Amino acid sequence: MQGNPKFMQMAIDLAVENVDSGQGGPFGAVIVRSGEVIATGVNRVTTNHDPTAHAEICAIREACSRLGDFQLVGCTIYTSCEPCPMCLAAIYWARCEAVFFGATAAEAADAGFDDAFLYDELKRGHADRTIATSRLLGPEAMATFNAWRQFAARVQY
Amino acid sequence: MQGNPKFMQMAIDLAVENVDSGQGGPFGAVIVRSGEVIATGVNRVTTNHDPTAHAEICAIREACSRLGDFQLVGCTIYTSCEPCPMCLAAIYWARCEAVFFGATAAEAADAGFDDAFLYDELKRGHADRTIATSRLLGPEAMATFNAWRQFAARVQY
Repeated sequence: MQGNPKFMQMAIDLAVENVDSGQGGPFGAVIVRSGEVIATGVNRVTTNHDPTAHAEICAIREACSRLGDFQLVGCTIYTSCEPCPMCLAAIYWARCEAVFFGATAAEAADAGFDDAFLYDELKRGHADRTIATSRLLGPEAMATFNAWRQFAARVQY
Repeated sequence: MQGNPKFMQMAIDLAVENVDSGQGGPFGAVIVRSGEVIATGVNRVTTNHDPTAHAEICAIREACSRLGDFQLVGCTIYTSCEPCPMCLAAIYWARCEAVFFGATAAEAADAGFDDAFLYDELKRGHADRTIATSRLLGPEAMATFNAWRQFAARVQY
């Protein structure tokens, strides 16, 4: 799939404006469907007190809100920087069709953002991660999936 | 670090209630600091039209909002199921201290949730992913980090 540089430039411009206006980090994203911009997003982590308010997450939430859907089938996301694992996984959950990114995770790391570290961290087993991760009440937790299987009106996603 | 089963049971109960009330998927999370519940979250993907509205993300956003901070230093998250890559990365961005989970990603996969697939997918190179991922305007995107480096009042995060 061929990307349209116009939308990437828009994502880059949004990122630069976001920095210059003191609103957040140097990241912007644009979601496009059939050549039309559905939503945009910029990094608002510090101003919104929300560590999940990365540009891609903001754009996905806005696009879903506008479309009234929890998926973005047929949508392409243009992001000024390679998505961090959080944003990449969100792109998968949203079922986007394609991803175009400008800067790489390594370039983001050079600028002080931990994306590359996080990709390494997620490949590790629980015991080797820097945030201690342990299992608790495993058998009891099966009640959650049992409830799901038994709930006739469940909406699969 | 020792987890408190009481908080895990709360996360499990929230997940079951969320299913039974038709509000979303079988996932619940509780964020605790110094023995006190700061925030809870449940899966609201379908009802909120938000693919990022996993239990952990909802709990993190709520906790940050309540604390007026973009980080959750000293906080522990209890989640009824092993976090998906999106949520695990969010937990890192939030700087949580520890993670306790109930069900595993493999058990979630058995119940129809793609978490295990997504962990595999994130380990792959761009060219091998099921969502096409390509670079575009890489040199132009450096403008974003240049702006960041030049912005004297930047808030690091």
